[in-house]
Amino acid sequence: MNERVATEIESWVERIRRGDPKAISRAITSVENRNGRVRELLQAVFPHTGRAVIIGITGSGGAGKSSLVDAMTSALRKQGKTVGVLAIDPTSPFTGGAILGDRIRMQSHYNDPGAYIRSMATRGSLGGLARATLEAALVLDAAGKDYILVETVGVGQDEVEIAKLADVTLVVLVPGLGDDIQAFKAGVMEIADIFVVNKADLPGADRVEQEIEAALSLNVAAQPDAWRPPVVKTVATRGTGAEELLETISGFIAFSKANGTWDERRQRVWRVRLLELLRDRLLQQVTQQLLGDAALNQYASSISKRTEDPYAVMDEILEKAGWHGTAN
Amino acid sequence: MNERVATEIESWVERIRRGDPKAISRAITSVENRNGRVRELLQAVFPHTGRAVIIGITGSGGAGKSSLVDAMTSALRKQGKTVGVLAIDPTSPFTGGAILGDRIRMQSHYNDPGAYIRSMATRGSLGGLARATLEAALVLDAAGKDYILVETVGVGQDEVEIAKLADVTLVVLVPGLGDDIQAFKAGVMEIADIFVVNKADLPGADRVEQEIEAALSLNVAAQPDAWRPPVVKTVATRGTGAEELLETISGFIAFSKANGTWDERRQRVWRVRLLELLRDRLLQQVTQQLLGDAALNQYASSISKRTEDPYAVMDEILEKAGWHGTAN
Repeated sequence: MNERVATEIESWVERIRRGDPKAISRAITSVENRNGRVRELLQAVFPHTGRAVIIGITGSGGAGKSSLVDAMTSALRKQGKTVGVLAIDPTSPFTGGAILGDRIRMQSHYNDPGAYIRSMATRGSLGGLARATLEAALVLDAAGKDYILVETVGVGQDEVEIAKLADVTLVVLVPGLGDDIQAFKAGVMEIADIFVVNKADLPGADRVEQEIEAALSLNVAAQPDAWRPPVVKTVATRGTGAEELLETISGFIAFSKANGTWDERRQRVWRVRLLELLRDRLLQQVTQQLLGDAALNQYASSISKRTEDPYAVMDEILEKAGWHGTAN
Repeated sequence: MNERVATEIESWVERIRRGDPKAISRAITSVENRNGRVRELLQAVFPHTGRAVIIGITGSGGAGKSSLVDAMTSALRKQGKTVGVLAIDPTSPFTGGAILGDRIRMQSHYNDPGAYIRSMATRGSLGGLARATLEAALVLDAAGKDYILVETVGVGQDEVEIAKLADVTLVVLVPGLGDDIQAFKAGVMEIADIFVVNKADLPGADRVEQEIEAALSLNVAAQPDAWRPPVVKTVATRGTGAEELLETISGFIAFSKANGTWDERRQRVWRVRLLELLRDRLLQQVTQQLLGDAALNQYASSISKRTEDPYAVMDEILEKAGWHGTAN
């Protein structure tokens, strides 16, 4: 990195640390697009991170996650805390507008310098979604936000991956949606630190709570001294229950810091991330140094036509790279 | 690979090629668990693959995908075609039973040697789901199945990844589910080669069809000479529409073979897969040779405590590995 770039990065990081929304936005855009000096930026930002609490909010469409994030932001701001919001939208060209529309609800915080709100459009690669979320959270962390609320769309495996990055994970349910479109699937029950039954003024809220309790009691894998996810009822559009939710979150943080799971979880996040970084860099070096795009397409074509097999091709490439490890 | 192992693999592959369900099941279990001689097996199986047509079936829970797969299997069997079914269940301990229950519907094919049906329980790693699906499809392909139906649960980014492996992708919708829990999100519209409106005897089927058409006409990215996904209506529980669906699938296959996109898509699948294989192997070698589990945890701990940064750690590990490429 030459001196000019180093100076630029330094001043960019300074502006991020002062909470300059433009500098933050530019950093998150770089993270999304993997462009520019994103690695240098993140490396420079990293020592200024680790302080923020990352809260993941997941649940089916229609559960009112955006309203809940809005209500939590208001409640945190009232306590004098600063907030960063990342709304993770695996956008489709068909729905980009609709999802963007949801964000308009957050306009109540638009002129508040203590709240930074950002939709992340992360179409495409899978691991990329979790990676970009983690890196964007680092930027907001360095920008001094006390709490980073990461809101995911839907409840799939990718949301589970994103939730694993969070220090605290909320799973939001509502009365009236069928079981199979709720969180009772795809490993979502297991990731909840706290359940939120939103729209709790609708009929059936008690039944949802009972179903959660019933499902939790089926979890034979749970350790006796482990945290048992509590259920908090909210009516997010009116702000009802937001303060109780924040108290419950504080309770979870205190619990997991005391029993060591807080640090364990953060360590696990970085273990996974480090392996990803290594894997991507190794691949990048092999492809850049030994395997141009044309060669790669040629191999893929031979494989898809069955004139070569992928394992033999892999050995061939690794041989060229000077790697002679044991095959597996 | 020593001679004994080679002989074992050879006889295993022979049994798979004769369609022996036990040999197939054992191979798919090995693929799921990454255990035993899975690499050797897949390498031996590979030259006998490439003939089967892989059909991906995705759509929300409650869309009747299992019934549709059942109806398609029956219709294909009537045509004398052999069928392999892979039902991809990212299982939760809470719902394992329910999803397994769905599979019971497929019991009509239980005693039919021309139909092999398998639920794949693939909790855990994300890319692993797509990888295992592709490898299980290779096994069924080598076993001589004419059609491999890959049914996913739900409509998330992981389903999109799985759908990308298929030669033909069906997106299943039903009347009466709200837009935001249907496929009009998360890039699912774009992956459809054919839309199926199932439960078409329910009110609102025409409206769903109109919504699909409206959404398709918004897709400005579509090339004028590209395939425009047709909509087929079915009542899968009665088998209604299954034959029309198979005809539409044949039409798509003929179209994409004629314009070259068939080969292009298969080449793209193998390009991605080859890069994944390379990436995983490179990482495996670095971690095995240079970075034990304890060292990895130590690094992750230092990073999470911010005493080291992940990029510097990565450079350090790569340096040890003798890699000195350009950083990025």
